[in-house]
Amino acid sequence: MVKIGIIGVGTVGESVIKILEKNADIIKARSGKKIVVTKGVVRDLNKKRDVTIPLSTNIEEILQDDEIDIVVELMGGVEKPYQVVKKALLNNKNVVTANKALLAYHRYDLQQSAGNLALGFEASVAGGIPIITALREGLSANHIEAIRGILNGTCNFILTKMMNEGADFGEILKEAQELGYAEADPTFDVGGFDAAHKLLILASIAYGIDAKPEDILIEGIESITTEDIEFAKEFGYNIKLLAIAKKVENSIELRVHPALIKQNEMIAKVDGVMNGISVIGDSVGETMYYGAGAGGDATASAVIADIIQIARDKNSPMLGFKKPLEGDTLTLQDPNNIISKYYLRLAVEDKIGVLAKITLLLSEFNISIASVLQKDTSTNITNLLFSTHKCKESDIQTALAQIDKMDCVHKKSILIRIET
Amino acid sequence: MVKIGIIGVGTVGESVIKILEKNADIIKARSGKKIVVTKGVVRDLNKKRDVTIPLSTNIEEILQDDEIDIVVELMGGVEKPYQVVKKALLNNKNVVTANKALLAYHRYDLQQSAGNLALGFEASVAGGIPIITALREGLSANHIEAIRGILNGTCNFILTKMMNEGADFGEILKEAQELGYAEADPTFDVGGFDAAHKLLILASIAYGIDAKPEDILIEGIESITTEDIEFAKEFGYNIKLLAIAKKVENSIELRVHPALIKQNEMIAKVDGVMNGISVIGDSVGETMYYGAGAGGDATASAVIADIIQIARDKNSPMLGFKKPLEGDTLTLQDPNNIISKYYLRLAVEDKIGVLAKITLLLSEFNISIASVLQKDTSTNITNLLFSTHKCKESDIQTALAQIDKMDCVHKKSILIRIET
Repeated sequence: MVKIGIIGVGTVGESVIKILEKNADIIKARSGKKIVVTKGVVRDLNKKRDVTIPLSTNIEEILQDDEIDIVVELMGGVEKPYQVVKKALLNNKNVVTANKALLAYHRYDLQQSAGNLALGFEASVAGGIPIITALREGLSANHIEAIRGILNGTCNFILTKMMNEGADFGEILKEAQELGYAEADPTFDVGGFDAAHKLLILASIAYGIDAKPEDILIEGIESITTEDIEFAKEFGYNIKLLAIAKKVENSIELRVHPALIKQNEMIAKVDGVMNGISVIGDSVGETMYYGAGAGGDATASAVIADIIQIARDKNSPMLGFKKPLEGDTLTLQDPNNIISKYYLRLAVEDKIGVLAKITLLLSEFNISIASVLQKDTSTNITNLLFSTHKCKESDIQTALAQIDKMDCVHKKSILIRIET
Repeated sequence: MVKIGIIGVGTVGESVIKILEKNADIIKARSGKKIVVTKGVVRDLNKKRDVTIPLSTNIEEILQDDEIDIVVELMGGVEKPYQVVKKALLNNKNVVTANKALLAYHRYDLQQSAGNLALGFEASVAGGIPIITALREGLSANHIEAIRGILNGTCNFILTKMMNEGADFGEILKEAQELGYAEADPTFDVGGFDAAHKLLILASIAYGIDAKPEDILIEGIESITTEDIEFAKEFGYNIKLLAIAKKVENSIELRVHPALIKQNEMIAKVDGVMNGISVIGDSVGETMYYGAGAGGDATASAVIADIIQIARDKNSPMLGFKKPLEGDTLTLQDPNNIISKYYLRLAVEDKIGVLAKITLLLSEFNISIASVLQKDTSTNITNLLFSTHKCKESDIQTALAQIDKMDCVHKKSILIRIET
């Protein structure tokens, strides 16, 4: 028998307990063992929960319980669970966590503490989609060339609705909040931070590269407007919040930002609250993984997959955050060096010479224009929408800063990268 | 060091050797061991191959080599590789195979012979897509409710082209043959048999159910016409060759046939030669897996993933074809009991009373019509295109047999199931 202690019995914790009971037959057939949750720790014992296991508010009751084999950490937060997981590992317990923020900051340190114990974190990225298993085992023969993930359901819900209905960001955010798809304070989701945490975990498995959220480019979807959506449609793109890890020579680009992506690409077809991750391996080519990125049962599915793997008593620890897989040669790419195509939105005075002035400045920075869309307006301010050929991030940022100083430009210009 | 012997050094075998060399760094980092192919066996030594390993025509040189840990079987065929794999296992060697036909017939027997040795077969289904790992590990907490797979690239290429270009089956088959996407004798692919072999492997992992290709419903895509494509477009469907495993109470439906599927479903968006597998689990909901289902490097990626897993010396054997996972209670569903929606194409005389006569007969079998499409023609024979509400397979088959006997019906009527 394998005994489990769960720290944090919220939506996911309740689902873990429920599914372990409901699906006990197949779980025993697949793990070879009976798996039982013997204790749960919660903050507030008075909160109503639909579980029958003994609950306590004292974490030590799990950490010090010699009979417990696996500690499941579902507390949330960063520093508190860090101390708890570290102590669990020191007490010789395997750990399964769904906590992406914890891993975004402390994954290498925790992996080292784990030693030969298992540290399972399938549930930390993309809910029930077995993307960690895919990267770690299914694609293990491959150098990973690129990962592009739709890792935040809130953003994807909002962008899909904006695309389908032509509605405004603010309106749809409000609708998402009413439906429970967005938090009252949506910054963590719509600002790209949630996706960034998950990206760091994926990039560590793929490349063994270390980085913290502060080290990488993170842009949210807040400034996307119906004009951008209209341009995207006109030229056959969707707009998605992408979390991108890309190997360029000996460096790794890690970035989270909205991106225009051709509608016929598989990742562009992932709509609504769903998640999808496209992985390009040097042998296998592109594979993609799709499913629910959140929700109690979907996340619990991943937590239990880790528990089953540990219960099967694999001799070798899971492949984790241990070492730079490709040697010590990989470095984090400076975002200024990104080479990309770009879409630009400029709010300019509708008068003679403006377009010439702007395109001249762009050409001075070696930025070549691929397409332009300008619609007739009734006001004297018009939106100039461009897409560019490939150029360097630092060039386009400098050019935009200069453009924004021109008298004829009336708002901060907006840039969206085009992923190809 | 882990030593490999490869039996059958063709396209996939060459790729395995090449990738093991090219990606030796990450493969060693992930497996913890150096992996070396020490011998290859081929039928014809004179055939030019781009490999430097020692080759022989004598299989015993691998089977009797005490230093070889893993035998990779890439021979093709059924009975010969069955004997070879069986002998390899008896000689205490782990086996990795990409041979779907072998497993379609002998998987339970071989798994029993394997005992605690590993029998890896990730490459046998959907090439480089790690669908076996996903079912076996990533989704291990789930009862699988349904699997719907696009498992044959040839069929998907043809159907996608028919859908996009409105061209005829025969024309596009010829084009596929010229491009190397279809064999000179395409029956195995376009007849659905290849997909059926793969379906049996997936269903065994998901349900532990045993069946042979002869036991299940297999229909190919040969009789699909541009009229069917037109109807599909009109009502928002794509047509795909689907391999379906579905749990209905205590029985499992296993069937391969063309199907109309709503265009907004993720599996309907898998186009061209690509493969995709949608899996519905009771906890995780729908997840989907997408990628190249064939090709030397993609298939080798899966072969090597198995090799790495074995090299990591996992204590427990891979979850395989061992036992009915859900007890002995599951039986194979009789195809006559399938409940489905259907699309029907009837070639009838364009005269008064024909539609009434046919719809009356359908109603006598409790078949209710959902939509009808009839286009004006210049001849006196017209195509009547129907879709039905849910009804029983045996009812619609009997009804069609009676319809086909009517004087006003000029060709064998065609039925395509609608997957919802």
